[in-house]
Amino acid sequence: MLKVLITTVPFGNKNRLPLDLLEKSNIEYLINPLNKKLTETELAEMVTDFDAIIAGTEEISEKVMNNATKLKHISRVGIGLDSVDLLVAEKKGIKVSYTPDAPAPAVAELTIGIMLTLLRSTHVSNSQMHHGKWYRFFGRRLSKVTIGVIGVGRIGTGVIRHLQSFGSPNVLVNDISDAPHKLNLPIKWVDKEQIFKDADIITLHLPLTGITKDLIKKKQLMSMKEDAIIINTSRGGIINEKDLYEVMQSGHLSGAAIDVFEHEPYDGPLKDIERCLLTAHMGSMSVDCRARMEIEATEEVIRFLTGEPLVGEAPKEEYDVQRMGL
Amino acid sequence: MLKVLITTVPFGNKNRLPLDLLEKSNIEYLINPLNKKLTETELAEMVTDFDAIIAGTEEISEKVMNNATKLKHISRVGIGLDSVDLLVAEKKGIKVSYTPDAPAPAVAELTIGIMLTLLRSTHVSNSQMHHGKWYRFFGRRLSKVTIGVIGVGRIGTGVIRHLQSFGSPNVLVNDISDAPHKLNLPIKWVDKEQIFKDADIITLHLPLTGITKDLIKKKQLMSMKEDAIIINTSRGGIINEKDLYEVMQSGHLSGAAIDVFEHEPYDGPLKDIERCLLTAHMGSMSVDCRARMEIEATEEVIRFLTGEPLVGEAPKEEYDVQRMGL
Repeated sequence: MLKVLITTVPFGNKNRLPLDLLEKSNIEYLINPLNKKLTETELAEMVTDFDAIIAGTEEISEKVMNNATKLKHISRVGIGLDSVDLLVAEKKGIKVSYTPDAPAPAVAELTIGIMLTLLRSTHVSNSQMHHGKWYRFFGRRLSKVTIGVIGVGRIGTGVIRHLQSFGSPNVLVNDISDAPHKLNLPIKWVDKEQIFKDADIITLHLPLTGITKDLIKKKQLMSMKEDAIIINTSRGGIINEKDLYEVMQSGHLSGAAIDVFEHEPYDGPLKDIERCLLTAHMGSMSVDCRARMEIEATEEVIRFLTGEPLVGEAPKEEYDVQRMGL
Repeated sequence: MLKVLITTVPFGNKNRLPLDLLEKSNIEYLINPLNKKLTETELAEMVTDFDAIIAGTEEISEKVMNNATKLKHISRVGIGLDSVDLLVAEKKGIKVSYTPDAPAPAVAELTIGIMLTLLRSTHVSNSQMHHGKWYRFFGRRLSKVTIGVIGVGRIGTGVIRHLQSFGSPNVLVNDISDAPHKLNLPIKWVDKEQIFKDADIITLHLPLTGITKDLIKKKQLMSMKEDAIIINTSRGGIINEKDLYEVMQSGHLSGAAIDVFEHEPYDGPLKDIERCLLTAHMGSMSVDCRARMEIEATEEVIRFLTGEPLVGEAPKEEYDVQRMGL
């Protein structure tokens, strides 16, 4: 019997359909019994007997794949392939799929909510009120600030579209490469340095790659306005966490929101900074988007294991990024 | 020399223009030296010598006005006249003005931010993360829920307009009276009972009057869905705070956000409920809207004290509401 390891948790929790689909196809499955993001070692031990993985963001390295002698397919629930060693997978003939569209609406909407929270210091007031302290914070409205969006793929453009209903704020954009994309949106393409310098809010919607790793370090943070806000709902490691902590500790930046971390679950020093809004990698965690991601990833595994053609295979560009260390 | 008491604080803080305007008109002013919302007694003691008040939400009662022998004009910074005894003011020939348009964009935008926060449990995750606890909450997107808007004046309609950019959610509306307003918006007018029963999010944009006081008590809260969310950025006292506490303590409702309280500054039991988002009456506190409110209220006082006609006088309906105890 074909066997699938489901590493990402929770899974099939709010919507059982993906589990029903596997059962109907007579595919055996195991949902990650540790109920947390697996380490490389844990996954390497767990994976030995499986034909496919329905995967989260845990590291699927050469060590893991060497132990997975039956593995022929990795189906990522979500976007972002930084956790999978695509070159090793390619060498071993392991197919890799993902669900890049499904999470975008949930991440974009969370990002807008976080922007509004940070602009009004709602999170700090809430924390203070729960400790009996009443202080009326001044805030700003979206239409009165300049917003820098770095990364204008599915999520970044979704964010920009939502922003239009808030009085068409001034939006500066850039992406991994500085070469302008053609975007049918009222934005201004500028280089990253200008975004750091001019934006009141910077939000990142980038994959984690050799180029974007540590894209934002002390130098970039200090070049931002003193009362600027930075938001990362994309991938941990793009903002250097240690630098962010030191910069905020020094009083620079009026707020930050970090949903993604270099090591998850996160339990680091940013938790001592009240004006830093912290969430537990929840960008894609709306019931509808999560269900769509799980269903799409599961259908892809079923297609693979029943000999149907794949529809969500990772594109060649993703392999090139890793091949060239970009 | 004419003298104005400015009770609302902060004032002229981010934008000095209102103070400059008073100085240019040779009007003496005192900014509330207690730097907090005044009690009736504090205000009664402070007000004796002033020709006009630029007022916040503190109680301007018969006792206060009896002590204010020179007072001829009350200029409210903001909307909501529940704090002013309009009938006493009328009897004494004290004119009352307000600035109903200025705060609306800031309150509407804060409300959308709060909705997104509550739908995704961002506030709870933030609180947990700051205590080293990692838990990925499931959330919902605006387009997948039913939103009940009670009160469709300037702020309520602003909220509904913003909602349109989030995939046109299902919006049910009602107002103080059940009689439908003509609204050029994609909404459904239903009675309040149906909103309590069907809405996943209920947001209040009502004045505090005899009718709306305690509009939402235990009965209404318990008739809401178990995982519903309630938001009050309008006036304290419309939701009964004690009932809200008891209902949430029992596990009912997935979240609430309260920005306005029966007694401010608030320091009551809701602070023990983690999923209750608390803010310090910050609805109108965006730099731009607050400046506009302060400037408009100040210009109105200057018009009054220099014999120009008023432009923001409280309308007859506001007097009728108090006369009839509505």
